[in-house]
Amino acid sequence: MLKAEYQERGPVPQDVIEAVPFEKPALGEGEVLVELLAAPINPSDVLTLTGEYGMLPPLPAVGGNEGVGKVVELGPGVDKPAVGQTVLLPVGCGTWRTHLVAQADKLIPLPNEADPQQLSMISINPPTASLLLSEFVDLQPGDWVIQNAANSGVGSYLIQLAKIRGFRTVNIVRRESLIAPLKEEGADVVLVDGDDLASRVKEATGGAPIRLGIDAVGDTATGRIADCLAEAATLVNYGMMSGKPCKISPASLIFRGVSLKGFWLAKWFENASPEQQIAVYGELTKLIAAGKLKAPIDSVFSVKDIKRAVALAAEGERSGKVLVTA
Amino acid sequence: MLKAEYQERGPVPQDVIEAVPFEKPALGEGEVLVELLAAPINPSDVLTLTGEYGMLPPLPAVGGNEGVGKVVELGPGVDKPAVGQTVLLPVGCGTWRTHLVAQADKLIPLPNEADPQQLSMISINPPTASLLLSEFVDLQPGDWVIQNAANSGVGSYLIQLAKIRGFRTVNIVRRESLIAPLKEEGADVVLVDGDDLASRVKEATGGAPIRLGIDAVGDTATGRIADCLAEAATLVNYGMMSGKPCKISPASLIFRGVSLKGFWLAKWFENASPEQQIAVYGELTKLIAAGKLKAPIDSVFSVKDIKRAVALAAEGERSGKVLVTA
Repeated sequence: MLKAEYQERGPVPQDVIEAVPFEKPALGEGEVLVELLAAPINPSDVLTLTGEYGMLPPLPAVGGNEGVGKVVELGPGVDKPAVGQTVLLPVGCGTWRTHLVAQADKLIPLPNEADPQQLSMISINPPTASLLLSEFVDLQPGDWVIQNAANSGVGSYLIQLAKIRGFRTVNIVRRESLIAPLKEEGADVVLVDGDDLASRVKEATGGAPIRLGIDAVGDTATGRIADCLAEAATLVNYGMMSGKPCKISPASLIFRGVSLKGFWLAKWFENASPEQQIAVYGELTKLIAAGKLKAPIDSVFSVKDIKRAVALAAEGERSGKVLVTA
Repeated sequence: MLKAEYQERGPVPQDVIEAVPFEKPALGEGEVLVELLAAPINPSDVLTLTGEYGMLPPLPAVGGNEGVGKVVELGPGVDKPAVGQTVLLPVGCGTWRTHLVAQADKLIPLPNEADPQQLSMISINPPTASLLLSEFVDLQPGDWVIQNAANSGVGSYLIQLAKIRGFRTVNIVRRESLIAPLKEEGADVVLVDGDDLASRVKEATGGAPIRLGIDAVGDTATGRIADCLAEAATLVNYGMMSGKPCKISPASLIFRGVSLKGFWLAKWFENASPEQQIAVYGELTKLIAAGKLKAPIDSVFSVKDIKRAVALAAEGERSGKVLVTA
């Protein structure tokens, strides 16, 4: 049994994390042993290793914030979930590990027949994409949305969810080679970022007003999205892939009345009622289990190869999410 | 009779504007001749000359957007305002001129006994300061507000209006020498901008939450104000004295939920009802006429010296507003 642990944070995330063996723990009353099926490496996980995230666990810590496993052994007094059942791991439990002891009543059963790799990414990116589309602007079918980092996990879910809800998307990427795969996912327009972005977007959309912009890059990329937006539009930042502050012109803010806001799923959880949470996750589980919502996967690594996995996840040039498995 | 006219826009504002003579016009039915008493040079006027403002008049144009004059001659069919009456010039009429022909019924009479130099600045900066304090956050007496460019026209009015409404202000400036004069105007805290601003603000306010930030500088100054704000606070930008985009960290936006918005008085006018406009200007006229609200004046130039006046107004190092008079 292995867990991917870090004793300290540092600028090179693969340098601080390593796979360390641990003894199979004895199961207490109400506990079960779960074997990892899949756990993604999200941008927020990388920022947690470098110390740049908004919420940092005490050290030492095990990496990973979400994932799915299957129950392999029941402790005393436990009769469900059954051995073999696919379950959602509790968010924030340190999921990059071959095995995990969990309270049976904290585990949410998921459809056994669904793809566990796709299910493993459900807790963070799909609700982020879903809420970015619903929490800021009251979009109507036919309305346009623009986002950068469109090939990210959130970006990919956002394209698909927008399509399902009848919205149209302009997707900004940094490489020509991403245009075709994003169109395949349902993107209406895909453009490579650059200084003349606003005029190319205008041409591609026929000048339709875009009332919601979504930025996960920061730096001058924020301002380029702002330049594409309609008067009184909202621009939401949820990530900082450039590692630099958002730059937005006073002209966008003052003369066109664009508002710049941030979105953080952890904050949404603090304020959302259980009913709101169930509504969001219920819809997403159904869509993912039915194969109607999925994210591209770049590669899958065993926990023992965590350093290579994290190094790849920290790079920009991937064609999907990096997953960890037992 | 002279008017300060420009035929083109350019990067050095005093190079494009010049005082040109004009013949005394014949007064038509319902018109009066007004002699200029005072007209300010606002930052927006300088940006209009350089072409950086959000709304640019057709060329050629006469500079200046607000001011007061006194009626010196009545045209046919006019019996008021009386000769000698102080009047507010219509906003946007090109006020940097010794004389102006105006429709008598468009002129708003102002108290003759009030200081015309102070009244000349009423149309733009005081309502901007007033609305920055009222349109974004529902402030209560005792609440804190933070602003930079605190020695600007808007900054000075904001300090005084905040005091009148019972709010407390943190004022950020770029020079030690401004601390004493701003405290005299009613500033609670005045600090020189710098990298450790947030910790110095925290110390000065005893860690009180600041829910409204006001930025007229842009660039990294925006982010430094954001760093001083409470969770879920609003940061409003209304100017770009640095000439650079606003920089704000995704950490402020995402993890602390700060929103960045813009304010433009011209846009407020478009949406405000006549009653709302009268309410705002009525209060301000009373306060200015009573000497309870005033702005420091650096110097006063005749229209013939418009180039020197504009050059000084375009500089950062002044101790108040530059005014133009007949």
